[in-house]
Amino acid sequence: MHKINIAEKLTLFSDHWNPRIVGELNGQHVKLVKFQGEFVWHKHDHEDELFYVLKGSFRMEFRDQTVLLSENEFLIVPRGVEHRPVAEEEVCVMLFEPATTLNTGDATPGNLTRNVLESL
Amino acid sequence: MHKINIAEKLTLFSDHWNPRIVGELNGQHVKLVKFQGEFVWHKHDHEDELFYVLKGSFRMEFRDQTVLLSENEFLIVPRGVEHRPVAEEEVCVMLFEPATTLNTGDATPGNLTRNVLESL
Repeated sequence: MHKINIAEKLTLFSDHWNPRIVGELNGQHVKLVKFQGEFVWHKHDHEDELFYVLKGSFRMEFRDQTVLLSENEFLIVPRGVEHRPVAEEEVCVMLFEPATTLNTGDATPGNLTRNVLESL
Repeated sequence: MHKINIAEKLTLFSDHWNPRIVGELNGQHVKLVKFQGEFVWHKHDHEDELFYVLKGSFRMEFRDQTVLLSENEFLIVPRGVEHRPVAEEEVCVMLFEPATTLNTGDATPGNLTRNVLESL
């Protein structure tokens, strides 16, 4: 039984768009990720995704609106909804989503796709 | 598509041991709760539970150890493991757990049991 210290885990990596697994429960993963720049447009057909901002801010773009997320705010993106995270400056985010979730969803796999995630 | 501001939601209630639902995804609930004092010993036979400390600190007692949790730390309590949260002073906690989770688990229902949770 060991606790997870978020600040400590965030010191262990510096690359962007590469989520790390820091917890697993009920078939879901808790992940930490750092965003900077523009991600790809994508959706997840079978998974809802939660984005919780730990440090910094970013905007989640949808086809018909944009939501600005700041520290200690979260957004749930329902399955099937196209989205694209964009961060002008680096932002640290906690994700809560099913273990099956692929970061680039239904987008053509590319250099941002992470099929296998490291656990911290 | 609307974001949740944690600080704002925490101003909406002041009672202890009474979780509020602030998000739902993939059959899981995101809840906010304030602890103060001692809870009852219990376990959940079918649900793992995540406790994330937003403000303050508390200790999670197990039959064979105790884990002290401070701000921005989280702990996953696996299903079947008896536990009891104890907070000397008020602490604000975010929970991730299946929507089926009853706060007092397998303990005899009592004045701390919350069968129906308010959504904020």
